[in-house]
Amino acid sequence: MDEVSPLLTDLYQLTMLQGYFDQGMEETALFELFVRTLPPGRNFLMAAGLEQLLDYLERLHFTGEEVEALSRTGRFTPGFLTFLSQLRFTGEVDAMPEGTLFFQNEPIVRVSAPLPQAQFIETRLINLLHFQTLIASKAARMVLAAPGKLLFDFGLRRAHGAEAGLLAARAAYLAGMSGTATVLAEGRFGIPVFGTMAHSFIQAHDDEREAFLHFAESQPDNVVFLLDTYDTEAAAEKVVSLAPRLRAAGIPIRGVRLDSGDLAGHAKKVRRILDAGGLREVKILASGNLDEFALDRFLREQAPIDGFGVGTRLDTSADVPYLDAVYKLQAYAGRPRRKRSEGKETWPGRKQIYRRYDAAGRMAGDLLSLEGEREGEEEQEGEELIVPVMRGGRRLRPSPSLAEARARAAAGLSRLPDPLRRLTEASPYPVAVSERLRRLAEEVDRGDGL
Amino acid sequence: MDEVSPLLTDLYQLTMLQGYFDQGMEETALFELFVRTLPPGRNFLMAAGLEQLLDYLERLHFTGEEVEALSRTGRFTPGFLTFLSQLRFTGEVDAMPEGTLFFQNEPIVRVSAPLPQAQFIETRLINLLHFQTLIASKAARMVLAAPGKLLFDFGLRRAHGAEAGLLAARAAYLAGMSGTATVLAEGRFGIPVFGTMAHSFIQAHDDEREAFLHFAESQPDNVVFLLDTYDTEAAAEKVVSLAPRLRAAGIPIRGVRLDSGDLAGHAKKVRRILDAGGLREVKILASGNLDEFALDRFLREQAPIDGFGVGTRLDTSADVPYLDAVYKLQAYAGRPRRKRSEGKETWPGRKQIYRRYDAAGRMAGDLLSLEGEREGEEEQEGEELIVPVMRGGRRLRPSPSLAEARARAAAGLSRLPDPLRRLTEASPYPVAVSERLRRLAEEVDRGDGL
Repeated sequence: MDEVSPLLTDLYQLTMLQGYFDQGMEETALFELFVRTLPPGRNFLMAAGLEQLLDYLERLHFTGEEVEALSRTGRFTPGFLTFLSQLRFTGEVDAMPEGTLFFQNEPIVRVSAPLPQAQFIETRLINLLHFQTLIASKAARMVLAAPGKLLFDFGLRRAHGAEAGLLAARAAYLAGMSGTATVLAEGRFGIPVFGTMAHSFIQAHDDEREAFLHFAESQPDNVVFLLDTYDTEAAAEKVVSLAPRLRAAGIPIRGVRLDSGDLAGHAKKVRRILDAGGLREVKILASGNLDEFALDRFLREQAPIDGFGVGTRLDTSADVPYLDAVYKLQAYAGRPRRKRSEGKETWPGRKQIYRRYDAAGRMAGDLLSLEGEREGEEEQEGEELIVPVMRGGRRLRPSPSLAEARARAAAGLSRLPDPLRRLTEASPYPVAVSERLRRLAEEVDRGDGL
Repeated sequence: MDEVSPLLTDLYQLTMLQGYFDQGMEETALFELFVRTLPPGRNFLMAAGLEQLLDYLERLHFTGEEVEALSRTGRFTPGFLTFLSQLRFTGEVDAMPEGTLFFQNEPIVRVSAPLPQAQFIETRLINLLHFQTLIASKAARMVLAAPGKLLFDFGLRRAHGAEAGLLAARAAYLAGMSGTATVLAEGRFGIPVFGTMAHSFIQAHDDEREAFLHFAESQPDNVVFLLDTYDTEAAAEKVVSLAPRLRAAGIPIRGVRLDSGDLAGHAKKVRRILDAGGLREVKILASGNLDEFALDRFLREQAPIDGFGVGTRLDTSADVPYLDAVYKLQAYAGRPRRKRSEGKETWPGRKQIYRRYDAAGRMAGDLLSLEGEREGEEEQEGEELIVPVMRGGRRLRPSPSLAEARARAAAGLSRLPDPLRRLTEASPYPVAVSERLRRLAEEVDRGDGL
């Protein structure tokens, strides 16, 4: 995942760069990444993936082998290939810190760099930020739906490939989930990992009770029994019957997991069986095609479930598997630029977002405006959401830790207005567009190179 | 993407393996990968990803560093860590060749190996096969919807991470699409790549006509102009006005691309403008949030569009972003096993699928049965879909080329019954379950280790 080739890009990035090279077009370009509209049912989005973008930018280069591969295609001139072999990212990045909540049309990353660099990075930049933002935004809804519950990412197997599985674990933890089943996420990002057992472990044994015993003896610090391979309540009785023996061996039973059928119904029955057997401290975990709506239902029903493993629908953001995330040229060579394609118009220039809070500390509205407008006629109050993170192609300072990003996410969620915290679609959060920005768009339209 | 760590797995695989290790459970286990039910709106699925699975199995090993990382967690015994450091895949794999069409409950991969090996590979096996199967199945619908049209994968930027972007290009080409914009897919898999220009290329120039000219001079073999940055029809007129100059320079205009607004409407107007300007041979390509339903609409409207770039909705399989794909233990130590979890029951034993065809060569029905049943009381005719591919942890023969898999996919699609070729949900394709398999399931239920 660290070693993704720069050839993992769209061909047009390279053909455009050949054009820029031939014309000597290398003045500074300003691009911004933003989401044009929030998807149906989403009241907010959460920025994530900046850390991986900065890694990518600091490491970006073409190896000799990669340049050679491009040379063999016959599409590029020798001079351009030499240029590519020397290409590094030397520009500036300003961005919302990870964990920041944002809304339609608000840039989350601004890139300012010589045109070929700023253009070339487009594909991987979107690829990295779109996905983690998508998953953090989905996970945040689960966190809001199930306050105080343990929430684990179980989605690696049906995530879309290796990188998606690993980065989904990161984005979900950043958004406030408790941990993941993905082992690599522990070493790579320091995320707590959690695991139980699969049905196959039970099935490989001739006897379910024996399977439980073997597992407990092998993993005495990690005893969570899976109950639904054959008959959930019968399995709960077996757990009760095993408890004295495990207690004598000093092995604590931490939990049981339910993975099929009417999870709330089984949880109630299992809770009664465990409690009657003196196992009040044993937690009940549930999994199996869960999402935020299911969590919300369990909480309303007061199902005695202490934690949830959420897999496929989290790691694929199943109800909203993509965002309308785009990376657009907003200025070149000091001149603001604007795309006017139908339904896809952009706001030109270098923008900032100012966020206001009400007396109770809740978010009260954002202003999308030109950077520096503070000092202009329309002085703005509020928090500036975009901050400098990279200059001359190097991080300005070590990135915030994942724990800090997670704290920012939690703080953001706690300041969301109540209607936006609900799972159902609310009236949109107010994002105003400043007068000066509107005027600039009109000016650009009048002067555009037609 | 080649170098994915074996730690990209679920923690429970490792904790279960510690359990198997402690108990000396290493007899042969049979696991099968299948999709429990077809998702809504899908009439068939297409198997893909086997090639990447076989690569993974042949290379599987833990480095010293990885074992050390596991050691530091304190979860595992030294003996088990030594076992892990020696772990290789030495088992058997039988599978449907890539490009094969399949249906609910039909195994697409069978793994037979010592229990710890067969168990350990579960997470990555599903991760690899689920995703490419998902995308090939989606792309196949596009191929059926737009016969004779050029179809390009443009989805890398919003694919879920790096591996998803690369493997989506592979799966889409396998399913019959024409190529991709992803440069790395050309070198890695020999897939034709295609690209045009982005709006930013036009915007970075002061003048749209000049942008076109610069691009054509830099990429004389690859001239496809993007028309919708400002005004689509005005841009088409500029293309006509540039044509004589380019013709004189020996630069052919291959196509134009439309990316916003009413694509069919613009295509008709642009076609008229190009034809009137003597540019009848210039192709019109369209892109922008397309999927198989949009393609179907364009074809019904007879929109003069020659090719389509399909991005996000292909690479995320947006309407169906996951399949109910599972990998289940069907036998251990020679004894068939069956999971009976509510709604998730499995068919035990080592299975084969026999496919029958009608007189016209169309698929007429499948039989899910135990392997070798042919010779039993219920002798079956038909094509055996599962074939041996790996023995002793090594490929039996070089894998079919991607071109062969693509040919298999095309042949399969041509043999689909007509109702299943349509985009709307049809009556399910008949998949019968053999009597002997039903009897085995009952026997296992009676004898299961309760």
